[in-house]
Amino acid sequence: MAKSEVKVLGAWSSPFAMRPIIALNIKSVEYECVQEEVGCKSEFLLKMNPVHKKIPVLIHGDKLVCESLIIVEYIDEVWSSAAPSILPSHPYDRAIARFWADFVDDEFYIAMRESSIAVGAEAKQAAIEQMVDGLALLEDAYVKCSKGKPFFGGNQIGYLDIALGCFLGWLRVTERFNEMKLLDEAKTPGLVKWAERFCADPAVKDVMPETDELVEVANVIAKLRAAPAPK
Amino acid sequence: MAKSEVKVLGAWSSPFAMRPIIALNIKSVEYECVQEEVGCKSEFLLKMNPVHKKIPVLIHGDKLVCESLIIVEYIDEVWSSAAPSILPSHPYDRAIARFWADFVDDEFYIAMRESSIAVGAEAKQAAIEQMVDGLALLEDAYVKCSKGKPFFGGNQIGYLDIALGCFLGWLRVTERFNEMKLLDEAKTPGLVKWAERFCADPAVKDVMPETDELVEVANVIAKLRAAPAPK
Repeated sequence: MAKSEVKVLGAWSSPFAMRPIIALNIKSVEYECVQEEVGCKSEFLLKMNPVHKKIPVLIHGDKLVCESLIIVEYIDEVWSSAAPSILPSHPYDRAIARFWADFVDDEFYIAMRESSIAVGAEAKQAAIEQMVDGLALLEDAYVKCSKGKPFFGGNQIGYLDIALGCFLGWLRVTERFNEMKLLDEAKTPGLVKWAERFCADPAVKDVMPETDELVEVANVIAKLRAAPAPK
Repeated sequence: MAKSEVKVLGAWSSPFAMRPIIALNIKSVEYECVQEEVGCKSEFLLKMNPVHKKIPVLIHGDKLVCESLIIVEYIDEVWSSAAPSILPSHPYDRAIARFWADFVDDEFYIAMRESSIAVGAEAKQAAIEQMVDGLALLEDAYVKCSKGKPFFGGNQIGYLDIALGCFLGWLRVTERFNEMKLLDEAKTPGLVKWAERFCADPAVKDVMPETDELVEVANVIAKLRAAPAPK
């Protein structure tokens, strides 16, 4: 497919926008990135995703697909003949991958966001503890899903690897702001090694932002949040 | 498969627990229902779904699957040879069905729940308006997805029909408590007819609770909520 027929409307610092890009890289599909600016929603985005007004949006010819995990499944299904498969092949393994991917979005990400916006030390500490508990569960899931192989998905990056892996950049930002290790050899030995492999993978390494760059974005977002609303 | 090999841990009044049951009915799979009591989590549930501690759980032989929409996809994939298919066959139609199913859970259901627990007339009114806006979007989605056929999924009940349809009982409860019509001929003509067809479908009609029964459950839940926490 010609490059211009596949576009990802995203932002380089967005973990959610990283998901379709990694999936397209895995499938060796060429695409164009259309970057949204942090803190401002373009007319184009409002037109492409009028319901949620959020990145990412996959533009595939005349088709629009929204919501990052739905886009990943779409990519896996459309380019099904392009190995490797992103979803596991067995229905039960697929259900387990979907379960933990939802956990990442509904619990782990929410705790990570809360840790950055919570007001007061107690609320921030509670969010951090929720992240730690979440990572302990994900460590356990990693051991069970990977069955001794390098990734949640086995020998290749799969659906749950993408779902969780896209947060590694922001996890490091959270670690830096809170002067602590969230992924560590003692509590999450499997995830520590997995994170190294994930970030070094050819489908990921040029997509994963540097921690310093994300810290800059975090500071911009904090300023926007603190600024008075426009009159 | 023997009946005892497929169990649904649920509750007759739960819209989420209704989803796997409708899916199993569509696939003509025999199952046993294990009922949880409203307002109390059994030891069995805590063991079956230790992460979220929520119904429904599908127990399929030695496999446990949690999260209602994930269970529906699992059922569709495991009993793939049992027609009809629950997910649409084309990847784009699947993505659209998944998008609106997520919308139902993340926006519509949240607004419905908020309308019942919101404190103060203003907050309650805001939640009701959010439901009305959501139903307008879903009416539009129905017209586009069904393409003139009876269901979102075409001629048969499909994934999005199950996702939205399971809330019809509680929608009627919300209408009764607020003395208003949320589904009406003027604003949502397609959904009005769709709801009638959905509730009359053989896979649904013995599963959809009566409004009077759900009102009783709503009153029990309200009393539990108002009761002081146990010491």
